[in-house]
Amino acid sequence: MKFESLRGFRDIYPEDAEPRENMFSTAKRVAHSFGFQIIDFPSLEPLDLYRIKSGDELVSQTFSFVDKGGREVTMVPEATPSVVRMLTSKKDLQKPVRWFSLPKIWRYEEPQSGRLREHVQFNADLFGPDTPDADAEIIGLAASILDSLGLSGNYEIRMNHRGMMEKILKSMQIEDAARAFSVIDRFRKLAENEFIEALGAIDISGKPAEMILKLAGTRVESVYLKQAVSEIVPLTQDLSDILDRIAKTMEMVSLFTDSRVVVDFSIVRGLSYYTGIVFEAFDVMGELRSILGGGRYNSLSTLLSGQEIPAVGFGMGDVVLELLLRRNGLWNRPTATDGYYVCMASDGVEMYSMRVAAEVRKRGKTAVRDSGGRKLSSQLRAASAAGLTKSVIIGTREAETESVTIKDMASGKQSTISYSEFLDSL
Amino acid sequence: MKFESLRGFRDIYPEDAEPRENMFSTAKRVAHSFGFQIIDFPSLEPLDLYRIKSGDELVSQTFSFVDKGGREVTMVPEATPSVVRMLTSKKDLQKPVRWFSLPKIWRYEEPQSGRLREHVQFNADLFGPDTPDADAEIIGLAASILDSLGLSGNYEIRMNHRGMMEKILKSMQIEDAARAFSVIDRFRKLAENEFIEALGAIDISGKPAEMILKLAGTRVESVYLKQAVSEIVPLTQDLSDILDRIAKTMEMVSLFTDSRVVVDFSIVRGLSYYTGIVFEAFDVMGELRSILGGGRYNSLSTLLSGQEIPAVGFGMGDVVLELLLRRNGLWNRPTATDGYYVCMASDGVEMYSMRVAAEVRKRGKTAVRDSGGRKLSSQLRAASAAGLTKSVIIGTREAETESVTIKDMASGKQSTISYSEFLDSL
Repeated sequence: MKFESLRGFRDIYPEDAEPRENMFSTAKRVAHSFGFQIIDFPSLEPLDLYRIKSGDELVSQTFSFVDKGGREVTMVPEATPSVVRMLTSKKDLQKPVRWFSLPKIWRYEEPQSGRLREHVQFNADLFGPDTPDADAEIIGLAASILDSLGLSGNYEIRMNHRGMMEKILKSMQIEDAARAFSVIDRFRKLAENEFIEALGAIDISGKPAEMILKLAGTRVESVYLKQAVSEIVPLTQDLSDILDRIAKTMEMVSLFTDSRVVVDFSIVRGLSYYTGIVFEAFDVMGELRSILGGGRYNSLSTLLSGQEIPAVGFGMGDVVLELLLRRNGLWNRPTATDGYYVCMASDGVEMYSMRVAAEVRKRGKTAVRDSGGRKLSSQLRAASAAGLTKSVIIGTREAETESVTIKDMASGKQSTISYSEFLDSL
Repeated sequence: MKFESLRGFRDIYPEDAEPRENMFSTAKRVAHSFGFQIIDFPSLEPLDLYRIKSGDELVSQTFSFVDKGGREVTMVPEATPSVVRMLTSKKDLQKPVRWFSLPKIWRYEEPQSGRLREHVQFNADLFGPDTPDADAEIIGLAASILDSLGLSGNYEIRMNHRGMMEKILKSMQIEDAARAFSVIDRFRKLAENEFIEALGAIDISGKPAEMILKLAGTRVESVYLKQAVSEIVPLTQDLSDILDRIAKTMEMVSLFTDSRVVVDFSIVRGLSYYTGIVFEAFDVMGELRSILGGGRYNSLSTLLSGQEIPAVGFGMGDVVLELLLRRNGLWNRPTATDGYYVCMASDGVEMYSMRVAAEVRKRGKTAVRDSGGRKLSSQLRAASAAGLTKSVIIGTREAETESVTIKDMASGKQSTISYSEFLDSL
């Protein structure tokens, strides 16, 4: 019988698991430096938690089932509903609340480049203030993580605003913005004629369709935003306030990163719960899916609990991020680790060599001890492969005189020193 | 509509998520110091992978279901089968292989103290050598993690050996050791008469039952092991060799930890795949379930792939470990973090204060920036609650003169310095 992992799921060996750990550690460290705190939540949730938020379309893409107790449950397809459930079920939380998490996420979708059925998602949310400051902190956190991973200049942030888009659509007599968003969301995946056709299917045609096509293809810097919008729609006070807020947010984000920040009118984020700013990050080569995405969603807490708590957040999966790091030569294991490979040159020195290894580790350094049963030459080959800076060779002579022979793996030089000298050198 | 998490699943807030992160980080750090490398594997696997190993009893305790593609799948109830699948499906791996992982694990069991339906398990395995050295390294790793968490002296390690137990049972004419193990495994949970009854139910009664009862209640130090066993069964060469190996392993484990290491004849580990040494760790107060458990399992790789690869490993869940750390006062969040809470004393200083925060973070320190929209007094209260060592107060004066006012949160003292002086001080 031959066992394989399920399609869209990964076996991750050390050569990839270690760079991945580094990626997650960096994200955690940067999140802490912004004052975000880690949380965790179940990987299995009542299916209704997602149904109420996203409707049956998302449900059809979940690993959901009826458990042995007859409950409809699902492996979590995203983090936000669980996070908001945690937020609203605890009454004594001081706002602002800054939380992040690193859950595994499951979606029953067709696997393809950058999309798997299981992935890890870094997720961060800021609850409480509805300010450009809060929006900028969230986008700034996302950018700072990418920059800390060495990706500065290799990505750009594309922003948009649901409220602005609704006003623009309204000026075209399009009242059902959500339906229009579901088409605009597919702009990058459709050819021009397909896009016009998709708009036609929701009764948008003629001049409005042409305008939306042009708009969706437009990207502008913050300083040209007002001009670009005013060419489409008269600037009411409301709309002008939104544009000022977008520009201010963009200016603030630029404090965090040198990467380009633009307004991209095609970024609307399919999920229906966003209420303000929305954003995604893309590789500048335009080869990959979006690296991360998020936005402001002020009404989800009301939907789930009746409490109104302004919220802004983002999610970043490990699949596209890994591809981007690989393309930029940033997916590497650490080279030689400061530590010792402990070899045994004769029988009967097991206890002494194990003591040497134990003492090295107690001092916080790495000691890989050969587990016995093979020749010194095999052990030294294993020592080379282990990527440690030094070997300790222990034979009868060393055990009898309480000494150790140290071999520098780079130069090949070796010298014998007393055990106490060795411990002092650690 | 009120949403709650499923029974046996946890919402983990920062006050618990942070000590939990520290616990996991310690385990990772110690594992690295032993030369173990991290891996990861799917949370969802073909159900057959477990059926072949553990039979239908375990399957009845899984979150298993038929997925949308008609496959029988299960959320993983343990790590070992996936790890062995990874091991045997890669041909070019140099032995010994030392792997660890930190997966979430799911079991459909009745939740109770120390047992939930979802938990995180630290899992480590050493593949290749079948030596006392390898056994001791695995047990030593387990002990070193507990010691690094501050638990030295608060736990003891109880060992046993499947081969030894089989020989002892055989001397009593009991050939089906696996069936006897399934009863001995429940020794701690049963009263004496219940235990005798359970043995009776598998046709063990009279003198053998009395001897097993006495044996299961026995714990001995390594130096008394031979004597204790020789009182029950004649010491053949085979048995004597096993006893020597156990004693040697125990002696080696004592190099890693000052915690007590004993042979406990009731430790047999229910799962049927162990072939040599087995072990568990318990709190010395005897109040909790076992903290961790493992052993040598040399035939699982043969069962799954036809390749014979000796293996020894252990798993340690986060639930009992958290209880033990709590009881020992070791479940704490870090006290004041070296960092800054950035307050705004007037309007119009958002950009400057955000720049200050961004620069602090770029230097690797924490800056929590108030997200705006409230009075200074509220911000300073939030600053106290945030547990950071210092606040930065920025008003119009500071913005105009490019300076910052620093408040030491412990002493309450504050002083105004120039922005460049501030950056130099970081």
